[in-house]
Amino acid sequence: MALIVQKYGGTSVGTVERIKNVARRVAQAKANGDDVVVVVSAMSGETNRLVALAHEIQEKPSPREMDVVLSTGEQVTIGLLAMALHSIGVDAKSYTGWQVAIKTDCAHTKARIDKIDEIRIRTDLDAGKVVIIAGFQGINANNDITTLGRGGSDTSAVALAAALKADECQIYTDVDGVYTTDPRVVSEARRLSTISFEEMLELASLGSKVLQIRSVEFAGKYKVRLRVLSSLENSGKGTLITFEEDQNMMEHAAVSGIAFDKNQARINVRGVPDTPGIASLILGAVADANIEVDMIIQNFGSAGTTDFSFTVPRSDYQNTLDILHKAQEKIGAHEICGDDTVCKVSIVGMGMRSHVGIASTMFRTLAKENINIQMISTSEIKVSVLIDEKYLELATRVLHQIFELDKEPEKRS
Amino acid sequence: MALIVQKYGGTSVGTVERIKNVARRVAQAKANGDDVVVVVSAMSGETNRLVALAHEIQEKPSPREMDVVLSTGEQVTIGLLAMALHSIGVDAKSYTGWQVAIKTDCAHTKARIDKIDEIRIRTDLDAGKVVIIAGFQGINANNDITTLGRGGSDTSAVALAAALKADECQIYTDVDGVYTTDPRVVSEARRLSTISFEEMLELASLGSKVLQIRSVEFAGKYKVRLRVLSSLENSGKGTLITFEEDQNMMEHAAVSGIAFDKNQARINVRGVPDTPGIASLILGAVADANIEVDMIIQNFGSAGTTDFSFTVPRSDYQNTLDILHKAQEKIGAHEICGDDTVCKVSIVGMGMRSHVGIASTMFRTLAKENINIQMISTSEIKVSVLIDEKYLELATRVLHQIFELDKEPEKRS
Repeated sequence: MALIVQKYGGTSVGTVERIKNVARRVAQAKANGDDVVVVVSAMSGETNRLVALAHEIQEKPSPREMDVVLSTGEQVTIGLLAMALHSIGVDAKSYTGWQVAIKTDCAHTKARIDKIDEIRIRTDLDAGKVVIIAGFQGINANNDITTLGRGGSDTSAVALAAALKADECQIYTDVDGVYTTDPRVVSEARRLSTISFEEMLELASLGSKVLQIRSVEFAGKYKVRLRVLSSLENSGKGTLITFEEDQNMMEHAAVSGIAFDKNQARINVRGVPDTPGIASLILGAVADANIEVDMIIQNFGSAGTTDFSFTVPRSDYQNTLDILHKAQEKIGAHEICGDDTVCKVSIVGMGMRSHVGIASTMFRTLAKENINIQMISTSEIKVSVLIDEKYLELATRVLHQIFELDKEPEKRS
Repeated sequence: MALIVQKYGGTSVGTVERIKNVARRVAQAKANGDDVVVVVSAMSGETNRLVALAHEIQEKPSPREMDVVLSTGEQVTIGLLAMALHSIGVDAKSYTGWQVAIKTDCAHTKARIDKIDEIRIRTDLDAGKVVIIAGFQGINANNDITTLGRGGSDTSAVALAAALKADECQIYTDVDGVYTTDPRVVSEARRLSTISFEEMLELASLGSKVLQIRSVEFAGKYKVRLRVLSSLENSGKGTLITFEEDQNMMEHAAVSGIAFDKNQARINVRGVPDTPGIASLILGAVADANIEVDMIIQNFGSAGTTDFSFTVPRSDYQNTLDILHKAQEKIGAHEICGDDTVCKVSIVGMGMRSHVGIASTMFRTLAKENINIQMISTSEIKVSVLIDEKYLELATRVLHQIFELDKEPEKRS
């Protein structure tokens, strides 16, 4: 008998019919003899509806009150799912974040979980009940309701799995696992039966939206065995996210997957004096406006000047240009320009640590297709390039092919 | 400086615009120098939406889970109202039932308030904040969410006013006070500036829907000064519900108001043996089906038999007939019949205690219009008659006239 934490997102509980479906799936796990804790999101559309209501009242609502309003979405779902389980004869009980309690810090709308009380959950599990818990929400030291930010239900599930020392945390979503790349772009994309925690972390942060990055970090920190599964299909084992300890279950490949991210815009600051502190002068102004900078490159320029490039989310493109134009004199830049029709394509793989020449294969393959690389950034297990967004599909396809991602690792040449 | 508890119902907070209106009204009270605690209901339609969702999942949902789902309605309103107050520069903080905490018994969907902690409220009031509290909900000893039943927000407001020893509890609704009768039926109906607690109790229980009866009982028990006001109009003092202590503010009239109730059906059980225990035999079967019996009359019959009549809510009419037909043999009744096109009209007034002949004036007035009285029931301060529902408007009109309710009591002949 295992203890399983299952998490169902907004789409999986988006209608009464789908909630009934989830109930049947939970009942199946229970019938298999497992103890089940279920974490649910708000019904899809509900959070957006509540956000819109709040913004109709006030442009920038108080984060505390925003959390009061938003946390109702998940609260409705837990009650409805409990009813759906009762209606098929499964004993179940629902809990909001504060009832558990899931204790967080005070950062309303983006709180972090500090501690989870597990007494009520354990008692109910011991009594044979399914325990249903509202994701995305908690309670801070002032007894105020907090929320964890978008996608926070994944984090709730992983944190609960960690606190309960669950055997597995299953994230049910509208895809049936993690793929070598987006199947809508490359039809040969293959579902990975396993992926290492580190690779998943890179994929999550690189724009692959299967799992929220904080939940993956959390899983890594507490060694929670995480599995991504489809809530729409009944068969399938999904993708298991593994740790070093699970070496024997891991695929051993140089490259495991390809991620891409269209939400990128490039900013160029040309001909700035090549003096210490120039980077912080430029990026400081951007950071002060709460704009997140992703790739950063500084090139040698000519005659004591340097060229500086970085990427920002596309929605912050114009704002970033405006900020820099205002600061242009202070920075002493010759030119400030940019491009918001770029994208980032990344290859990710634990095997890069031991395989050499992976990056050069990537660059050569793109060159062969006349795809110009604008920026490069690397980590131990990934290589990212910034390219013209019109080449996104082509680049992803040829890289998928050259690294033979359509084949199981052991069948690759 | 007074401490005022204001309560706004679902219609008063039914749209974003109306929530903003409520905020302006609260701000006005605050600007007048009063401390304000606001109790709100769910936005109109929201509770019905949630009930419908639950019933789509399960015919008879678990009351505990029903409360989890239903309590979200008020939670959304408190957050939105706090935002609306912030947006006009008023410091405000919202609390759910459990945050206060409003402690109730365990009767889910119809809980009763046991105790209210007032520390958080006092602290915020002392800091100059408006405190907004979700009506209709509380928390039981198990830390489970409870709700007080439909109209429970009135009770929340009165209970809070009692706990805080507020100077006044103002119930804002879509009418501007308590009238001598429904102005849609009698255009001469006059708003009462005051009404005694006992009269209000009779009017509330007789189908006048201005205030929920439990809230009136609560106000009586804890001597909370209650005022009914319009949330749609800005002027007007509404109707103050007074106690014996406020003798000098009270209107002194034989009859204060006329209530009517269309939700009535009459059941006749004819020719039952006139033996002890026959009433409980008949009514026991009805009570076992959770049907609420209102008026009850037992007449002398002939030859050792008796006739038994009572009224039930109209929606329970057929069910009651079915139950009695099944039990007919056991009861030994000659005939079981009924009528669901009846209504109850009642005159209410503290003055009846001292004025004689009120009831006979009522009966004579109805007789003059050829309105047949089917049943009569009386209390110290009211006389109710059951009549054919087609005479409802006529009866109300002629009674309003004969008791001169359109005039202030001191101007009556």
